[in-house]
Amino acid sequence: MFRTIEWLDDTSEVRLVDQTKLPLALEHIITNSHERIAESIEIMEIRGAPAIGAAAGMGMALAAIESKARTTSDLLEYLEKAAVTLNTRPTAVNLTWATNRMLDVAKTAEGSVDDIIQKLIEEAKEIAEEDVRMSKNMGEQALTLIKPSYTIQTICNAGSLATVHLGTVGAVVRAAHERYGGNIKVYAVETRPRQQGARLTVFEFMEDGIDTTLITDGMIGTVFREGRVDCCVVGADRILRTGHVINKIGTYTMAITAKYHNIPFYSVAPASTIDMVTNPEDVIIEERDPDEIRIINGEYVTVPDAKVYNPAFDMTPPELIDAIITDRGIVHNPTEEKMKRLFEND
Amino acid sequence: MFRTIEWLDDTSEVRLVDQTKLPLALEHIITNSHERIAESIEIMEIRGAPAIGAAAGMGMALAAIESKARTTSDLLEYLEKAAVTLNTRPTAVNLTWATNRMLDVAKTAEGSVDDIIQKLIEEAKEIAEEDVRMSKNMGEQALTLIKPSYTIQTICNAGSLATVHLGTVGAVVRAAHERYGGNIKVYAVETRPRQQGARLTVFEFMEDGIDTTLITDGMIGTVFREGRVDCCVVGADRILRTGHVINKIGTYTMAITAKYHNIPFYSVAPASTIDMVTNPEDVIIEERDPDEIRIINGEYVTVPDAKVYNPAFDMTPPELIDAIITDRGIVHNPTEEKMKRLFEND
Repeated sequence: MFRTIEWLDDTSEVRLVDQTKLPLALEHIITNSHERIAESIEIMEIRGAPAIGAAAGMGMALAAIESKARTTSDLLEYLEKAAVTLNTRPTAVNLTWATNRMLDVAKTAEGSVDDIIQKLIEEAKEIAEEDVRMSKNMGEQALTLIKPSYTIQTICNAGSLATVHLGTVGAVVRAAHERYGGNIKVYAVETRPRQQGARLTVFEFMEDGIDTTLITDGMIGTVFREGRVDCCVVGADRILRTGHVINKIGTYTMAITAKYHNIPFYSVAPASTIDMVTNPEDVIIEERDPDEIRIINGEYVTVPDAKVYNPAFDMTPPELIDAIITDRGIVHNPTEEKMKRLFEND
Repeated sequence: MFRTIEWLDDTSEVRLVDQTKLPLALEHIITNSHERIAESIEIMEIRGAPAIGAAAGMGMALAAIESKARTTSDLLEYLEKAAVTLNTRPTAVNLTWATNRMLDVAKTAEGSVDDIIQKLIEEAKEIAEEDVRMSKNMGEQALTLIKPSYTIQTICNAGSLATVHLGTVGAVVRAAHERYGGNIKVYAVETRPRQQGARLTVFEFMEDGIDTTLITDGMIGTVFREGRVDCCVVGADRILRTGHVINKIGTYTMAITAKYHNIPFYSVAPASTIDMVTNPEDVIIEERDPDEIRIINGEYVTVPDAKVYNPAFDMTPPELIDAIITDRGIVHNPTEEKMKRLFEND
């Protein structure tokens, strides 16, 4: 599988998949301009928290090269401006985290301007590599849960395209695919209203030669009843200390339906996704534009002024979750106590 | 609410809603030609078993007028041909049933050719009226289950547009809306892949001034958890003697999710929908064209050659169904014995 974003050593450029063209075309953007990276983040040619973190890091490295600075202070000044430019999505925590990390390197590194630029390039590549290693780690761990010839059902896209490489759910699926010589299958749920399952997950697993079947969100019960699925693996936008998993709308319904059929239900996410502070009752679910439901491919599929309820995420309680897979270990039958233990050595 | 199909006495014509234009336009077809009715059935300008039964009956009445027959045998000959023309959808039981019923009238009626034609017109109108009465009956009965200020969730379209008037689920919703002075609400589930919930149900309830909210199939769990829904009422394509309900894909997942939240789940259908012969394990679910899932509004929403599983219906077992509402009475917690009792006086 290609990487979502990559540093090209030969030319000191960044190459990224243009996700707005998927799934009908696989096109790359290749640039040496940090402003072009900022634009890509803004118009969502690249999306997914880990992926845009890596993009921001590489954007800062490009800015360092562009600056043609002769002094460290000129370089720093240019980088401060670039950091502002790159922070195009104010709620994306990873963006600020990545640009701050790069600024810290610029401020603390020793040596000539060229030495510092070299260190910035290395740091940007390291941000991306850390993400790849974390995915690999989670994928490897999950192999205790995923057996050969399993069929895994997932929702939305928690694949390569949301990260630098492999993904979260994507890493689990790919680790099993590799370990078991291709002897696994995937059911991808369309995931209305934005259809990331159909548009992205099907695309990227097909690219990797993984046997993937697309179904609509309402078909999960039938697929379970017919014994077509061995386990569910979903991502997470946030996991609470209580073990509640906040993820794409449809996840909760899937977890209930899986429980009814005794099908194991797993959520996979890096420990950085875990929120040890917020209570389940205080979680506010973002409600999105009604037109996401009313319009598909530019045409109305209902009465144009139909009343719509469009929550973007839902919350699955721990009693429906068999395990949470993180880069710090697997939590079986999650409880608050077990979740705390993940962070015990901090 | 308008009628889906109607006989116009003044001009001896048939008027029907062109459902291919919904929900963006409400257009009628007005015709005095049985061939035009046959075409409407074939290209699904009219659909839904009861509605196409009524259309076939009225088509036969139009044919009788068109025939300009001077003898009963000329009339019969013309009608026999018309019956063949009108049977454009071979699996639609209601079509043959309606054309046979009209032929029987033509064969047994006494009097002049004009008298017979008049009787055929009356019979066609009676077929439609019977359907309306049956809907009304089911709606009235359901009021023992639906309380004032209830919010009812439904899937697909089992409304007026599938029948002559009112519908099955539509009749229940309308009876409650009328009895409780508008004090009820509806959540309509989009119903992928063909979106009859978004396209038809939202449209027809909005036309009647019923407070209707559209959600996607994956949102049912959230809507239940948030206490937005008091009961589910769904139609049925077939009900088995065991109480298994075969209905639009997504129904089974909804029933499981409703049970998890202790939300009553009802299915409403005329007794003619009940199949006292077939065993649950022998039911074959129609699998439809993968492009229904791959393409929306003429554009791909996934990889064009993505593997797809597209069952059109699912089967909900009786343990998930709180009551089956029929024109012969309500069956609570359905069992084979209780289903048989519905037909005891036959």
